Amino acid sequence: MKYTLGDLASKTGVQLSNKSFANIEVEAVAPVQSASKGEISFCANPKYKKHLSVCQASAVILKEELVDSFSGAVLISKNPYATYAQIAGLLSPADIPTAEVHSTATIHDTARVGRNCYIGPNTVLDAGVVVEDDCLLMAGVFIGKNSSVGKGTRINANVSVYHNCALGKRNIIHSGAVIGADGFGFANDNGKWIKVPQTGGVVLGDDVEVGASTTIDRGALDNTVIEEGVKLDNQIQIAHNVRIGAHTAIAGCSGVAGSTIIGKHCTIAGMCTIVGHIELTDNVRITAMSLISKSIKQSGSYSSGTGFEETTSWRKNSVRFKQLDAISRRLFKLENKS
Amino acid sequence: MKYTLGDLASKTGVQLSNKSFANIEVEAVAPVQSASKGEISFCANPKYKKHLSVCQASAVILKEELVDSFSGAVLISKNPYATYAQIAGLLSPADIPTAEVHSTATIHDTARVGRNCYIGPNTVLDAGVVVEDDCLLMAGVFIGKNSSVGKGTRINANVSVYHNCALGKRNIIHSGAVIGADGFGFANDNGKWIKVPQTGGVVLGDDVEVGASTTIDRGALDNTVIEEGVKLDNQIQIAHNVRIGAHTAIAGCSGVAGSTIIGKHCTIAGMCTIVGHIELTDNVRITAMSLISKSIKQSGSYSSGTGFEETTSWRKNSVRFKQLDAISRRLFKLENKS
Amino acid sequence: MKYTLGDLASKTGVQLSNKSFANIEVEAVAPVQSASKGEISFCANPKYKKHLSVCQASAVILKEELVDSFSGAVLISKNPYATYAQIAGLLSPADIPTAEVHSTATIHDTARVGRNCYIGPNTVLDAGVVVEDDCLLMAGVFIGKNSSVGKGTRINANVSVYHNCALGKRNIIHSGAVIGADGFGFANDNGKWIKVPQTGGVVLGDDVEVGASTTIDRGALDNTVIEEGVKLDNQIQIAHNVRIGAHTAIAGCSGVAGSTIIGKHCTIAGMCTIVGHIELTDNVRITAMSLISKSIKQSGSYSSGTGFEETTSWRKNSVRFKQLDAISRRLFKLENKS
Repeated sequence: MKYTLGDLASKTGVQLSNKSFANIEVEAVAPVQSASKGEISFCANPKYKKHLSVCQASAVILKEELVDSFSGAVLISKNPYATYAQIAGLLSPADIPTAEVHSTATIHDTARVGRNCYIGPNTVLDAGVVVEDDCLLMAGVFIGKNSSVGKGTRINANVSVYHNCALGKRNIIHSGAVIGADGFGFANDNGKWIKVPQTGGVVLGDDVEVGASTTIDRGALDNTVIEEGVKLDNQIQIAHNVRIGAHTAIAGCSGVAGSTIIGKHCTIAGMCTIVGHIELTDNVRITAMSLISKSIKQSGSYSSGTGFEETTSWRKNSVRFKQLDAISRRLFKLENKS
Repeated sequence: MKYTLGDLASKTGVQLSNKSFANIEVEAVAPVQSASKGEISFCANPKYKKHLSVCQASAVILKEELVDSFSGAVLISKNPYATYAQIAGLLSPADIPTAEVHSTATIHDTARVGRNCYIGPNTVLDAGVVVEDDCLLMAGVFIGKNSSVGKGTRINANVSVYHNCALGKRNIIHSGAVIGADGFGFANDNGKWIKVPQTGGVVLGDDVEVGASTTIDRGALDNTVIEEGVKLDNQIQIAHNVRIGAHTAIAGCSGVAGSTIIGKHCTIAGMCTIVGHIELTDNVRITAMSLISKSIKQSGSYSSGTGFEETTSWRKNSVRFKQLDAISRRLFKLENKS
Repeated sequence: MKYTLGDLASKTGVQLSNKSFANIEVEAVAPVQSASKGEISFCANPKYKKHLSVCQASAVILKEELVDSFSGAVLISKNPYATYAQIAGLLSPADIPTAEVHSTATIHDTARVGRNCYIGPNTVLDAGVVVEDDCLLMAGVFIGKNSSVGKGTRINANVSVYHNCALGKRNIIHSGAVIGADGFGFANDNGKWIKVPQTGGVVLGDDVEVGASTTIDRGALDNTVIEEGVKLDNQIQIAHNVRIGAHTAIAGCSGVAGSTIIGKHCTIAGMCTIVGHIELTDNVRITAMSLISKSIKQSGSYSSGTGFEETTSWRKNSVRFKQLDAISRRLFKLENKS
């Protein structure tokens, strides 16, 4: 795909630094350090600003205050990264296979596939499944009984969706993801675990993305709910009856335990643990590898854990951690004396 | 399915609050907050007790001391959650497909499938595989050479079982689980890693449940062993030669490193790390996101990590953590002076 | 397979304790505790030395200083574990299926499969895929458009490789692994996330092993790169544009965030989190469950977190952690007074 800078500016609602650049054509995005003629870059992170003076790109997307840092064409944006994302989407549209139901797919008599869908090799749609128009299901996907896939959704190879789950419109589900497996519900009876049937489902809102090998369990009775615009990275575990508010993003390897409610517009970094049966309000930020063990009622940024250091000194300090209450009390005693 | 309260009481060995309720019929379980006529609820968590006075369920399962909190029919149980689990199992039996070997399944000549089994689309049974009676293998399952699947076991879509692994009876294996991949065994030879062949297998006891995307590696020489009744949640990593004792439950995202032995009736919360070559005795509880770096010889509850707080204060405290040994020594010096 | 000790000594370049042992035959490896006649063991870990005096193996691999601990034949090695790995590889060669393209595999007209390859049931090679000679792709593997698989590589069941990814020679990829899913790249535009197309690929060097359910995301623009000899355990998340240096090993459940560069010969234990946009030099060791939040310029061993203890005392200490800065300041004040 090729676009003129004039076209890109008007499609993304930003300004060109000089109208004379309007007919310059670009056909790809590239990092500011390695871009060459015909490519467009962006710079939002001040860390990379130094590269602008020698950047060979045909154009760069910048905030107004950085316009003079680059000698060529600039698209002036209040949010260069967002403008870049839009332009990259225009220049690198997803490669969509031609509509087809592959001959090796297994489609139940009672399943229904909309118009303009690609159903890949060995993909299985069980009884009562509904796949709306413009969907793309790659190879080896399994969709269980009575589950549905909203318009324009893309499911990559080897994804498993259990029965009675509802995916939204324009979802992107990555390989290895599992949606609707049983929640971890067992009652202990004299030391043995009795399985609690998990009869709820999973409901994903529109524009949700689910990363590779991420697992979202079905609810015990009610549904597990992921609201619109939520982005889940890889290897995330969402337990039964969790609700994640709209436009929240969670980075890789994090886990959310059962029945917890996370608000809208939260950002949770990688490897965080959110315990069960708590509530996080909207606009909460959690830094990497934090354990959130209680509800959070106030928007803001939260953390747990310790800094890292050389193992030899860490050993000494982590021993002292176990004496911390005792040490504190000794200090207080000393204060009282002095 | 419909049952009278009298039937349910006798099948689960509990008492009805009043015999006049014996003929009331219920057909579903529901949460105490939203249950309506024809449904049965339970309340074990005091947090939800407040809902009982307005609960619309036809019956509720309660401990004796709470009988008066609900005006309708009560099933009196010493363990309401366990009774609920049994009743939910009766009212919501798993949906079992009709016995069939799907035409797209690939069954090796030397593999053997018992009576009353469902083998789904594209499922592959390699040479020498034995699947006992009453098993359910959904779509896209792979069972490697000479592995066996015990009676009544259910394997969900896209599960991979390597060669020479033995699943028990009534196991439930969720999608994306991988049983029998090579343990992480390498010898370092002048900076390069030489692979150590992993020639042991994996043995699962009866009534084991393995969550979605959970991985259980084969042993290096001896087997990796998961004893009967163990419940593993999603995204758990069990390394080679681990042994997990009967009726232990491990929550999502936890990892157990090589050759570690975990006792019976332990409960390990989410995102815990148990290092290799240690032993945990029976009845150990580990709280969320703990690092267990040494053997535990005493039953009880163990934890590591820090509480969470706002990031600005956490930064200051986590810097101090690195000075903890030094700070402690300064305190001791001061004590000696005073 | 059967070998004489003389053969094994010469093939692995080590010495026999006495030439008279040269014709003894062994046919399997076994742990020192349970080995019997016809088997060969090793002992590198002093913890297991006590078993040598009663060990029934036909031979044991030991360091020179331990030769006298075992009364039978000894292979004397400077690195017993590495010698053991080599010998185990000779005695237990991987079970390679006969070359075949299974009738249920879906091979695109423009895909190319080399000589002596096994392509298993339901495996899919999309347009332009190249599989070099001597490869083994088990059942249900998906290889996306224009990706390539180097000579002698083994891909286990239900692995997903997206488009434009290049696997090296002699790679071993375990079940459930996902290579080339989209990196987690979104620009926030007034609270909504705009997807940033991920147009880079993934490049794996030669002799790389990727564990079960490990995910390696494709780069945003440039490639994600895993250099030769890197060993990744199960359930690891490698984000977009990460580079991992040659011969580095990472244990299960660890995550590396975007654009981070890890040096050569590093060893990273399980459940570690390496944040994004940092650099770790060569020969860095990270202990289990550490959070690495800044670049490391000095080789050595690093840690974070706290020791574990009984939950009751941990609660007190972890509350004190949140007062640590305040407590420290109180100490300093006291010091100034005294």
